[in-house]
Amino acid sequence: MISRADVEAAARRLDGVANRTPVFTSRTLDERVGAHVVLKAESLQRGGAFKFRGAYNAISQLDEPGVAAFSSGNHAQAVALAARLTGKQAVILMPLDAPPAKVEATRGYGAEVVTYDRYTEDREALGRALADERGLALVPPYDDERVMAGQGTAALELLEQVPDLDTLVAPVGGGGLIAGCATAIEGVARVVGVEPEAGDDTRRSLEAGERVAIDVPRTIADGLQITAPGRLTFEVNARLVDEIVTVTDAEIVEAMAFLFDRMKLVTEPSGAVGVAALLHGRVSGGRIGVILSGGNVGSERFAELLTTLPPRPS
Amino acid sequence: MISRADVEAAARRLDGVANRTPVFTSRTLDERVGAHVVLKAESLQRGGAFKFRGAYNAISQLDEPGVAAFSSGNHAQAVALAARLTGKQAVILMPLDAPPAKVEATRGYGAEVVTYDRYTEDREALGRALADERGLALVPPYDDERVMAGQGTAALELLEQVPDLDTLVAPVGGGGLIAGCATAIEGVARVVGVEPEAGDDTRRSLEAGERVAIDVPRTIADGLQITAPGRLTFEVNARLVDEIVTVTDAEIVEAMAFLFDRMKLVTEPSGAVGVAALLHGRVSGGRIGVILSGGNVGSERFAELLTTLPPRPS
Repeated sequence: MISRADVEAAARRLDGVANRTPVFTSRTLDERVGAHVVLKAESLQRGGAFKFRGAYNAISQLDEPGVAAFSSGNHAQAVALAARLTGKQAVILMPLDAPPAKVEATRGYGAEVVTYDRYTEDREALGRALADERGLALVPPYDDERVMAGQGTAALELLEQVPDLDTLVAPVGGGGLIAGCATAIEGVARVVGVEPEAGDDTRRSLEAGERVAIDVPRTIADGLQITAPGRLTFEVNARLVDEIVTVTDAEIVEAMAFLFDRMKLVTEPSGAVGVAALLHGRVSGGRIGVILSGGNVGSERFAELLTTLPPRPS
Repeated sequence: MISRADVEAAARRLDGVANRTPVFTSRTLDERVGAHVVLKAESLQRGGAFKFRGAYNAISQLDEPGVAAFSSGNHAQAVALAARLTGKQAVILMPLDAPPAKVEATRGYGAEVVTYDRYTEDREALGRALADERGLALVPPYDDERVMAGQGTAALELLEQVPDLDTLVAPVGGGGLIAGCATAIEGVARVVGVEPEAGDDTRRSLEAGERVAIDVPRTIADGLQITAPGRLTFEVNARLVDEIVTVTDAEIVEAMAFLFDRMKLVTEPSGAVGVAALLHGRVSGGRIGVILSGGNVGSERFAELLTTLPPRPS
């Protein structure tokens, strides 16, 4: 089980390497939500998502000359970038249907990309085989203490920027971000996780008191297409997460448009789930910090998603 | 003629009121440009553009109980917001074809909006009549020393964030932003202005050695649809601007997409002209600071502009 001290140690490793991402507020958002909302823009983190925090924290502690990773996208870019910064080789296993922008960005960071079918193949087994075969260290996307501790630095930083939060809201995929963040702010603020309605494996697992697996969820939030909580992340989240709420794909697109139009922020679907939950009254009151987890959506994909919105007044 | 001291005084007035906007870098951008590029995101300024700096600097020094302004958009929002913050009434004259998002935002800040036809009516005369009629102070969008000094704080701040710049690149509409910025960094860096190809009134004026008027330019860069440099701004710019380069509308859209895709930044057409110039080799070498002047483009308009791009690999 990770501790706040682990997150603080990760913060020291990341100091001067990760971006200290800015926070944003909006009177319009506050009025719509009926609370004071502070957005932590991890979309402006290196690699375009919070994932760099965990990947760098893990990779900077490795002895192996190279790393392997399996990822639906942002973890891939994060591992590729962290490997480059630490002088290591990176081999990334990515789903065939990963957003092209993410595949391109991963290659752009100098990594080798190996693809697989996420609906039929077991990425964990493939990743482990790849790592064994080539003598690389496998850096899991969430179920790893160093990765979780690294992700938690987002909340630690947010607390430095805004010390008096009542609630922290974060997306939940495999649960690494929220596990790290909940550890960082334990005893300070309530922790609410947000899942896509179709991908509520962590909500179900918390209700059941044990890890529950679901089918691969079909949702636009590609970063949250996870079938079951991690073993280590679930252990933390069962103890520290106060509540899980869910949002629909339509609500996510609406939030992405709101963030673009009103706050000039680019978010990918997974990155906008917190604001989607707020705009629909699923989290309320007091001072709410929200992690915008990433911004890796191509402009063409963004435009395509906008066409699914009902007509807006212009 | 404003001095660096005027810009510094403006910075003190804006301290704690204006956002200290973040700066961003990108390895991809550096590689494409062949220089080290630092982007100053005034898109993340209050009101979504640098205009708040000048408006607040001017309005906070007024004795009148209310202000009037004429503006194609961002100055309107800036005046409305600055008026609200200083407890003054605001009446804004806006063109009939101003982007709906800007009109809506201006009203959202509590201002009264009066519309006019930018192709047939004289906005300056209308604005002055409105101000006289209602006993309001007219806050010009650029041709005003307090406004210019306020805009210059963007460059002052950029210099604090990145002290060793060789070149500063800024959009040129009426010339207020670049005049203030050039004053702030005089003797430190070369100053390059960017105009839309169709709206190159300042370039022509600098070449002619006097203010030259053109027809209302038809360009997507609505913030730069100016027919002639200001009297005061031209006086400064003739002395301090080293060069003006131009960009096409197609190059602007390409830059907006690049900023979205690679840097997760929302920019309106006028805000992206500096990056457009860099991506097309019109400014080069050394350490280049670029002011992204604003982000007030609606997501639907952004999507519409993207459709004008040639097909991209996906």
